[in-house]
Amino acid sequence: MTGAIQTIPARRGKAARVAKGRSIKVINTHGQQVVDTWAFNAEDLKEFMSMEHTRAFMLKLSPEVGDKFLTNKRRPIITVVEDTSPGIHDTLLAACDDYRYRLIGCNEYHDNCTDNLFAGMKEIGLDAPEVPSPLNLFMNIPWTKVGTLSFEAPYTRPGDYIVLRAEMDVVMAFSACPQDMLPINGRNNKPTEAHFQVI
Amino acid sequence: MTGAIQTIPARRGKAARVAKGRSIKVINTHGQQVVDTWAFNAEDLKEFMSMEHTRAFMLKLSPEVGDKFLTNKRRPIITVVEDTSPGIHDTLLAACDDYRYRLIGCNEYHDNCTDNLFAGMKEIGLDAPEVPSPLNLFMNIPWTKVGTLSFEAPYTRPGDYIVLRAEMDVVMAFSACPQDMLPINGRNNKPTEAHFQVI
Repeated sequence: MTGAIQTIPARRGKAARVAKGRSIKVINTHGQQVVDTWAFNAEDLKEFMSMEHTRAFMLKLSPEVGDKFLTNKRRPIITVVEDTSPGIHDTLLAACDDYRYRLIGCNEYHDNCTDNLFAGMKEIGLDAPEVPSPLNLFMNIPWTKVGTLSFEAPYTRPGDYIVLRAEMDVVMAFSACPQDMLPINGRNNKPTEAHFQVI
Repeated sequence: MTGAIQTIPARRGKAARVAKGRSIKVINTHGQQVVDTWAFNAEDLKEFMSMEHTRAFMLKLSPEVGDKFLTNKRRPIITVVEDTSPGIHDTLLAACDDYRYRLIGCNEYHDNCTDNLFAGMKEIGLDAPEVPSPLNLFMNIPWTKVGTLSFEAPYTRPGDYIVLRAEMDVVMAFSACPQDMLPINGRNNKPTEAHFQVI
């Protein structure tokens, strides 16, 4: 039974429950939108998908089809089962937050992925216990041989999607990243909506 | 005023307060020992050094002399002011924990850096509020162009050290990593003590 397509509004967060064995398709509807993604164990929100624990297991900076993400208790929580995008996703950088926008020159409150995580969870009656480092879907942060990083526009195209299978009952949270001061959501600096669907 | 040289016993954790402007020298006494390192704001332990926030600012996978680490509030917490080691440090991998050792084949409790963080803090009367991704001093996790990672022996030599300056009043916590199932602490798989000194 496939669920309805749900909108992650531009610059906002959204969360959804996904039962073990079901999958969630995250769609880059307009083609240039980064989607910060979190997964929490639905029975115990203090267990969550962890980039730093996953990297020690996956032994990769960026996931490919077949790769599993681990929780902070080193248990599989989601598996990448399909990816029609060019496969460029970021596991290295923190979710943006109001501090980040102040640091790069914004003088007033700026929408941000950290607040979107809390708001998205709150909408379904849950409190995020902390802010895990997110899986930044479609985000293009290339690394060099010497280990320098840069913020680049995505390589994704409209309609590209990734499918993640839940390996336990999970709460997934998403933020359509509101970054409009760097080209991370495309060279026009125009954050857009994205969509997801439980399948 | 230089403080006494303190021991981080082999396979154990240790914490110390460092006032703003003072520095702490972390010494790889026997030359092949990884030291997992955390820094917390002494006034508010919920603000701590964050690898994922730092990478977004430093734009590097591994720090060099002059680089600052940021907290989860994007404020500078420590600066690398000197480094006599070959400069290979890891910011990518989680602290080891009992789950990790079970996953790689250990059937009983194994000393681990996560428990050492809590024990080291407890010894000076503090509770770590969570387990931030650590700065793994001297740890050799090379990455390739395509982003694969591997666990390798350190390139450090006996007596190599790094000096970190506190940019606020901090609590530093260290663990002499007890990993003896992978060559991360040298090809002999023999975790050793390390030392530190507030200078």
